[in-house]
Amino acid sequence: MRFDDLAVGMAATMAKTVTEADVVACAGLSGDFNPVHVDAEAAARSRFGGRIAHGLLSASFISATIAMKLPGPGTIYLGQTLRFTRPVKLGDTITARVEVRELVAAKRRVVLATTCTNQLGETVIDGEATVLVPDDA
Amino acid sequence: MRFDDLAVGMAATMAKTVTEADVVACAGLSGDFNPVHVDAEAAARSRFGGRIAHGLLSASFISATIAMKLPGPGTIYLGQTLRFTRPVKLGDTITARVEVRELVAAKRRVVLATTCTNQLGETVIDGEATVLVPDDA
Amino acid sequence: MRFDDLAVGMAATMAKTVTEADVVACAGLSGDFNPVHVDAEAAARSRFGGRIAHGLLSASFISATIAMKLPGPGTIYLGQTLRFTRPVKLGDTITARVEVRELVAAKRRVVLATTCTNQLGETVIDGEATVLVPDDA
Amino acid sequence: MRFDDLAVGMAATMAKTVTEADVVACAGLSGDFNPVHVDAEAAARSRFGGRIAHGLLSASFISATIAMKLPGPGTIYLGQTLRFTRPVKLGDTITARVEVRELVAAKRRVVLATTCTNQLGETVIDGEATVLVPDDA
Repeated sequence: MRFDDLAVGMAATMAKTVTEADVVACAGLSGDFNPVHVDAEAAARSRFGGRIAHGLLSASFISATIAMKLPGPGTIYLGQTLRFTRPVKLGDTITARVEVRELVAAKRRVVLATTCTNQLGETVIDGEATVLVPDDA
Repeated sequence: MRFDDLAVGMAATMAKTVTEADVVACAGLSGDFNPVHVDAEAAARSRFGGRIAHGLLSASFISATIAMKLPGPGTIYLGQTLRFTRPVKLGDTITARVEVRELVAAKRRVVLATTCTNQLGETVIDGEATVLVPDDA
Repeated sequence: MRFDDLAVGMAATMAKTVTEADVVACAGLSGDFNPVHVDAEAAARSRFGGRIAHGLLSASFISATIAMKLPGPGTIYLGQTLRFTRPVKLGDTITARVEVRELVAAKRRVVLATTCTNQLGETVIDGEATVLVPDDA
Repeated sequence: MRFDDLAVGMAATMAKTVTEADVVACAGLSGDFNPVHVDAEAAARSRFGGRIAHGLLSASFISATIAMKLPGPGTIYLGQTLRFTRPVKLGDTITARVEVRELVAAKRRVVLATTCTNQLGETVIDGEATVLVPDDA
């Protein structure tokens, strides 16, 4: 989407179920083998009562929604803030939502409110993304 | 590491080369098929001159350093801010570094300065993590 | 197998259970994040009542049977028709079967009837493959 | 996209570079370890002069374009014909294109012309997809 076609309030979403396979792969890519992610025994004894997904795995669905939908292909990621407000369990379905909050035309920058919610509608991540929409995108 | 063993200024690092295989896998996990990541032709025509890695892939090395080293296994991720200051090209070696900036004993919270640098010493990500060190960790 | 050793009616099979991990990986490789494949909540509300596998994932077992068994290593894939006749659920075990239907000696081409069935014997894919058996294979 | 919003001639594309990592993963998912895909030595001696990608890997980008763009999420895949007209080498960038060719309103079916081309504009796959657009999609 071109910068000039964007307007405050526009929103887009994407949803994906976070599976055991995703968590295994995410551990392998990142090197984050925190027992709460990869050790079912330790995770069962933790406050979570079982394995939880990496926070940045759910956050990556925000990145995907930005890149694929709003503003879409070619968007350049400048920044992201993230608050991990609830754990994501294996099998949870996470919906990432991005909404245009502010447009800075001089710099072609867009600020987006970014949230992830689970299948119960509970917020698991909230934060804000700052992106650049290049004129060649 | 137990909360009481932490001190401001403590630091830890981890480094990983970002390969084409990492970027392919990261696209697959997240659904972020932005052409700058997965389409060598489009990426070559972009301002980057070639494919770049997902910002959250490098960010995940911060998560790994926190989980594996400082504060270490059992740490709970509460928040992360990220500024993507330079692109990461395929083949770049990224060093994530976390440093204890602030300790909030009452809440067992730790604020860490978090950066990623490339093999030239250039900063590609900077930001701040907030984590919780549970007493059962 | 050499072209001259092939005969109409020869058949080969291969079977694989389609797991959640296969579907996650297939989405990641292809970019096909259709909610019926990756979103358990949306899939549960769909006519399928739950997540189903990508049609081309089962079809790839046909390709494997051709490449590994009949005609075997070195075979060149020229064409494939596919009718997806039933959904494949996660956990289904799919048997791909290929059977020589026609031999075109002048062109070293083989036409194979190709089917995939599930563990109940129900056909989930049927179609036809056309392959070339090079003399150096 | 709803069935009623579709029109003959509408088209959508997606592009992805086919990397060694994709081919390795595709072999692992399918079981198609044809030497032309996974054995660099044998592939170098073959008519292709080097490893080539699985035909169904490129075909999967057609599936992705259908599922993500046209007709989009919720589309049900009924059939696909494929002619593999040229090999895809590792490093090739493949553009899948789907174009609405025919609409069968009574059955909510859509026939799409489907092609994959490489970075030189050469056709590597052509064929036709038949899909169903459910009214709950």
